[in-house]
Amino acid sequence: MPEISSKGKNMPESPIRKLAPYADIAKKKGHKVYHLNIGQPDIKTPEVAIAAIKNIDLNIIEYSPSAGYESYRKKLAQFYQRQNVNVNKEDIIITTGGSEALLFALATITDPGDEIIIPEPFYANYNAFSASTGATVVPVISSIETGFALPSIASFEKLITPKTKAILICNPGNPTGYLYSESEILQLADLVKKHDLYLIADEVYREFTYDGDIHYSVMNLKGIEQNVIMVDSVSKRYSMCGARIGCLISKNKDVIATVMKFAQARLSPPTVEQIACEAAIDTPQSYFDEVISEYRGRRDTLITELNKIEGVIVTKPKGAFYCIAQLPIDNADDFAQWLLESYDYNGETVMIAPAAGFYSTPGMGLNQVRIAYVLNKEDLIRAVTVLKEALLAYNAKK
Amino acid sequence: MPEISSKGKNMPESPIRKLAPYADIAKKKGHKVYHLNIGQPDIKTPEVAIAAIKNIDLNIIEYSPSAGYESYRKKLAQFYQRQNVNVNKEDIIITTGGSEALLFALATITDPGDEIIIPEPFYANYNAFSASTGATVVPVISSIETGFALPSIASFEKLITPKTKAILICNPGNPTGYLYSESEILQLADLVKKHDLYLIADEVYREFTYDGDIHYSVMNLKGIEQNVIMVDSVSKRYSMCGARIGCLISKNKDVIATVMKFAQARLSPPTVEQIACEAAIDTPQSYFDEVISEYRGRRDTLITELNKIEGVIVTKPKGAFYCIAQLPIDNADDFAQWLLESYDYNGETVMIAPAAGFYSTPGMGLNQVRIAYVLNKEDLIRAVTVLKEALLAYNAKK
Repeated sequence: MPEISSKGKNMPESPIRKLAPYADIAKKKGHKVYHLNIGQPDIKTPEVAIAAIKNIDLNIIEYSPSAGYESYRKKLAQFYQRQNVNVNKEDIIITTGGSEALLFALATITDPGDEIIIPEPFYANYNAFSASTGATVVPVISSIETGFALPSIASFEKLITPKTKAILICNPGNPTGYLYSESEILQLADLVKKHDLYLIADEVYREFTYDGDIHYSVMNLKGIEQNVIMVDSVSKRYSMCGARIGCLISKNKDVIATVMKFAQARLSPPTVEQIACEAAIDTPQSYFDEVISEYRGRRDTLITELNKIEGVIVTKPKGAFYCIAQLPIDNADDFAQWLLESYDYNGETVMIAPAAGFYSTPGMGLNQVRIAYVLNKEDLIRAVTVLKEALLAYNAKK
Repeated sequence: MPEISSKGKNMPESPIRKLAPYADIAKKKGHKVYHLNIGQPDIKTPEVAIAAIKNIDLNIIEYSPSAGYESYRKKLAQFYQRQNVNVNKEDIIITTGGSEALLFALATITDPGDEIIIPEPFYANYNAFSASTGATVVPVISSIETGFALPSIASFEKLITPKTKAILICNPGNPTGYLYSESEILQLADLVKKHDLYLIADEVYREFTYDGDIHYSVMNLKGIEQNVIMVDSVSKRYSMCGARIGCLISKNKDVIATVMKFAQARLSPPTVEQIACEAAIDTPQSYFDEVISEYRGRRDTLITELNKIEGVIVTKPKGAFYCIAQLPIDNADDFAQWLLESYDYNGETVMIAPAAGFYSTPGMGLNQVRIAYVLNKEDLIRAVTVLKEALLAYNAKK
């Protein structure tokens, strides 16, 4: 039997998907599972987007251009400009999800063995994208004590080697919910300029800020335009995760020309979903107002409830729809599996994402979990009650 | 300014897209351009698929499972079984186009520097996929004199090194239109078994055979099930190139488990288009009968007309909708560009794909072009007339 590649063997498995078989066990037992583990919002997709799908006027589902429809790129540029984010249509390549934008970015700027510095905990698939392109993740630890604020610039700088190609941030952060301030982004910009690195910002949660904070996009940085790559997606903005439409944005024409070669090789992003996304740009502001207000309420509910549990440490996230909570346990992997496999509270249990998979430093985050607040408030309250009882039962059995 | 990666710099540009600026010149002059260069069919997508899009019953465009919807994989397995092709739903991972299936296959079985033997001329993006995964393409030349039949097994065998991981074929072939016989596939299977390699077959044109020949799928090979990976797509079958829905199929569970890790990292294939593809499986046979009859007619027309041009060498393709034609010129790149930039025959010109981009051996195919017969017969006749006049004018000017 022929061999699997080392690359394939070393590809990390998704920390959440690993739990899926245990979720099946819980469901087979008839237990209700509260999914605090996933980033799939329950918010409806805007009606204009669904209507565009239903009214599609195509006889042939043809290839779109490799960079995406020009009409869509134009409207998308206007969308950013309305938010005073400095983007023109020439700066945009439409991708198959933010995932592909990240893969294209890494392939464009790294060769195997090149290093990317990422504050951890970080979106677990950054490990997978790095493994699949051959880049090496160099983590810089951010801590729960500071609410996962940007680590000191000195702690970044001491990790820079001749192999370092970029610093990658997610803002607001999955899994931390931290929103970097303008001042933090400016400090990173200085560092990136000093060492002539790329700064990649994954801004797929850019709309999700809750305390009147303004999201500061890397596209607005002055003087390092040639170093900046922004990654975005419609997945969370319009609750269209399944559309697989994202984009890569840069003012650096060499970057865009190189990304374009990868884009041409895979021919085009999906046609129908792209048409829906173009229509989604006309989503009224009231949709976002409602969504943000709903998430703010969920966040407040979740944090209030979590803080009632003895031994739980959590800081209020400023953006996205996740938080990292430290639990009074030793091993969140074991606890998460036990919750599904062996526990129920009145026929209910919860699924949480063990945080170790969001770190690349071994041993980090073992007593932490990521909680997504993508359930309604009532369910969140129930879910945290189950979690509280589960912690008591889990610690009592030892 | 930070550097582009070597990988990015070395990514080959699409041989067809390179001509796009010259096509724009022709169009600006008001010339009608017959597109013989592309694989975008003018055939309508089946009504059942379009109806599934128009009738979509979703409030949220959610992620689908990373392997694709189970219901779709089930129906797709039944689709293959009806054609006596040995596929079960567990063997299938739905991908974002055949492109992603090929990328996943290469990443799963090759590390940088590993070699893939491919009969050339081959689909140009095999070069791009190899460059982006770090695999090395080792070409084995098939020749226009034999109609691009499978090269001798000895010519494959002498290229096998410890780095060789797979033989990759496209059947029926893009750009050759050659359909491998059962006997040719069986010979390859013996070789693959002898050296314990993978056999990857890109069967995206499997429905497109014209002379009563039965397409022989690698999934039906006995005794090397663990070595076989099949790649398929809905792009041509249902004229749904823009859907970006394909699949990777293998009986090898390690291959499927590894591909699954890459699939999970990019989360899911597109949701709406996948629903349309599931519906498309109910496309009535009459649709295919019409389409095949139309393409057979186009092929016969094209070949008859091309054979009327002095100095043109072409063999009748048995499948897909392309042929390679050898023209009485020295440099097809120059000729193709000249056709768009400087030539017209009564206000009309043609766009053809220079064949050198479909070879990886330097200097091969310089006087060849790929012609796609995706135009109706009347337009094909006009296009070949323009080509004939153009060849006279081009050779006269020298």
